[in-house]
Amino acid sequence: MRDVLEAWQPVIDETIETVLPREIDEDYLASFFGAPSYRYDPQAIQRALADPIWELLDRGGKRWRAIVAVKLFEAFGEDPEEYLQYAAIPEILHNGTIIVDDVEDGASMRRGGPALHLEYGTDIALNAGNAMYFLPLKIITHNPGGFDADTRLQAYEMLMHELNRTHLGQGMDICWHNEQEVRVSEQAYFEMCACKTGCIGRIVARLPAILTSQSAETERLVADYAERMSVAFQIGDDILDVEHTLDQAGDFGKEFGNDIREGKKTLMVIHAVENAPENEVERLEEILWAADNTEAEIMEAIEILQGTGSIDFARERAERLAREARESLAAVDLEPEPADQLADFTRFVIERDV
Amino acid sequence: MRDVLEAWQPVIDETIETVLPREIDEDYLASFFGAPSYRYDPQAIQRALADPIWELLDRGGKRWRAIVAVKLFEAFGEDPEEYLQYAAIPEILHNGTIIVDDVEDGASMRRGGPALHLEYGTDIALNAGNAMYFLPLKIITHNPGGFDADTRLQAYEMLMHELNRTHLGQGMDICWHNEQEVRVSEQAYFEMCACKTGCIGRIVARLPAILTSQSAETERLVADYAERMSVAFQIGDDILDVEHTLDQAGDFGKEFGNDIREGKKTLMVIHAVENAPENEVERLEEILWAADNTEAEIMEAIEILQGTGSIDFARERAERLAREARESLAAVDLEPEPADQLADFTRFVIERDV
Repeated sequence: MRDVLEAWQPVIDETIETVLPREIDEDYLASFFGAPSYRYDPQAIQRALADPIWELLDRGGKRWRAIVAVKLFEAFGEDPEEYLQYAAIPEILHNGTIIVDDVEDGASMRRGGPALHLEYGTDIALNAGNAMYFLPLKIITHNPGGFDADTRLQAYEMLMHELNRTHLGQGMDICWHNEQEVRVSEQAYFEMCACKTGCIGRIVARLPAILTSQSAETERLVADYAERMSVAFQIGDDILDVEHTLDQAGDFGKEFGNDIREGKKTLMVIHAVENAPENEVERLEEILWAADNTEAEIMEAIEILQGTGSIDFARERAERLAREARESLAAVDLEPEPADQLADFTRFVIERDV
Repeated sequence: MRDVLEAWQPVIDETIETVLPREIDEDYLASFFGAPSYRYDPQAIQRALADPIWELLDRGGKRWRAIVAVKLFEAFGEDPEEYLQYAAIPEILHNGTIIVDDVEDGASMRRGGPALHLEYGTDIALNAGNAMYFLPLKIITHNPGGFDADTRLQAYEMLMHELNRTHLGQGMDICWHNEQEVRVSEQAYFEMCACKTGCIGRIVARLPAILTSQSAETERLVADYAERMSVAFQIGDDILDVEHTLDQAGDFGKEFGNDIREGKKTLMVIHAVENAPENEVERLEEILWAADNTEAEIMEAIEILQGTGSIDFARERAERLAREARESLAAVDLEPEPADQLADFTRFVIERDV
């Protein structure tokens, strides 16, 4: 899987450069955004969009959303080179959500550097993040693939559906984060993940299905694949945060016990609250709610999660979702080589050293 | 004009309630956003979306964007009651930009109350503001007007065009705001306004034109009308800020000399920088750049604007834009009564006591 990612990552970045070049001039602005009513200021757009967005992209990120889209085009028997700008759509959207999430969470670090709003100011960062919600959607209008009106409309309606649900998921997550009591059901937790993280995943899969005129059933199955894989990755991330804290390794690019410090209502926390004795539930909620925690408190919280078997429970759920993702994929008639690669992506849900 | 606004404002609010009810339940979520993958948490969506959004809407706002759209439907000879959800689209978008702008600017007050991010937290406010960018776009998919695929696609492509340019305008404005030197040309200033404020105005006009199958020329003319009126209002707002400061009235809902304190690069400032002696330009830039200003400094800045005739210049430009807006409107064959009302809207660009 690592070789697939490494081979395609530079191709994706070159593609993103065709949508948003590193150097902005008036010709680009007029051709991408349309003629100005008066006169654009390319220097301002350079600083407001190109500089912060390329700073974030150049810091890293595996571009797996774009690459899964590329592999789906291949799996549908198409030449992915003809669809590269479309494959970049969910990747640009995802990076936009990262900038906005970091403002919402008051995050300090991102991909080994200061969060963008700390480096460029909240105004620039937020506008750049929001611009990344609309910039890629313009690709459908530019129509480099020459699709008919019905296909373009279907793409827009799908994108509006998924981007609306993204904001429901983020809203649920934020709202729970602002409550001391953990009242979240497992079903609502999965829904939050399916919306917040899964909807960008669904775009990854549904866009290739729509643009290559797959059946509704195939579109549904590949969307299930991508949604479940995305949710499994989210749960896997949360497990890794706990495990790296236990290892005291701290080399995961996050701080020690980060999720507990942040008071994140992970699947492990939800399971523990449903299964731990009342005094431990209260203590766990107290530690998660506190403005800051000692290392001892973080270890105490993790011990509560371990005592209820919540880490194993979450691992089992993540693996089940990854298995369901593979089953959805297997139900579609796909080209064997890219299909195998797509199935492989789901096998790194918890071991993430790729 | 006031009676038109007062008659329609409650109708618009009732319409917005059909898009986002004040009370959220699972039935609404499933019918508006689609069936969940697992299970929604309506209580969280209530707190994350309905509560903050209705708090902002209930604080006021004239809903003029929706009402201009209503009048355009009438002017095209249609019954506006059949298009109300569509008329609400630019109004919801506009209110979303208000929430996001307030986070970007670090604003403290909005419509007589604390800015939403101060009352609900940056996370809730920002997610609600961003949700308001996508929520109304879902109306095109729900298709209450029963439009054909070509019309819906045209609506989406127009919306993507204008919402992209909105972010260019905001980017230009922010970028200039972050520079001490005022290097903005008049043409770039008008472009910033045409994008930042004008594009939502253009949606107000283009959506009724598209949905009632007007010619491309008619769509262009009504878009010009709405864009110029929006820019004229923006310039008028800036003039009012100076005039109310001169009156020391302070009853405009803004603080004394607010725009100068904020270092806003208004058309007046740009004109003064082009026309004042060098020492005054330096002094004006210094006052605008300072983290805070005394009342004497604010008066000094205003005297520089007066000395170069910049306030009169801006008033003349706002009035010219309003006149151009009326000329664009007059070039279209419209029902006379709503056409007169639409022309009337442009006459309140600087005297805003409506």
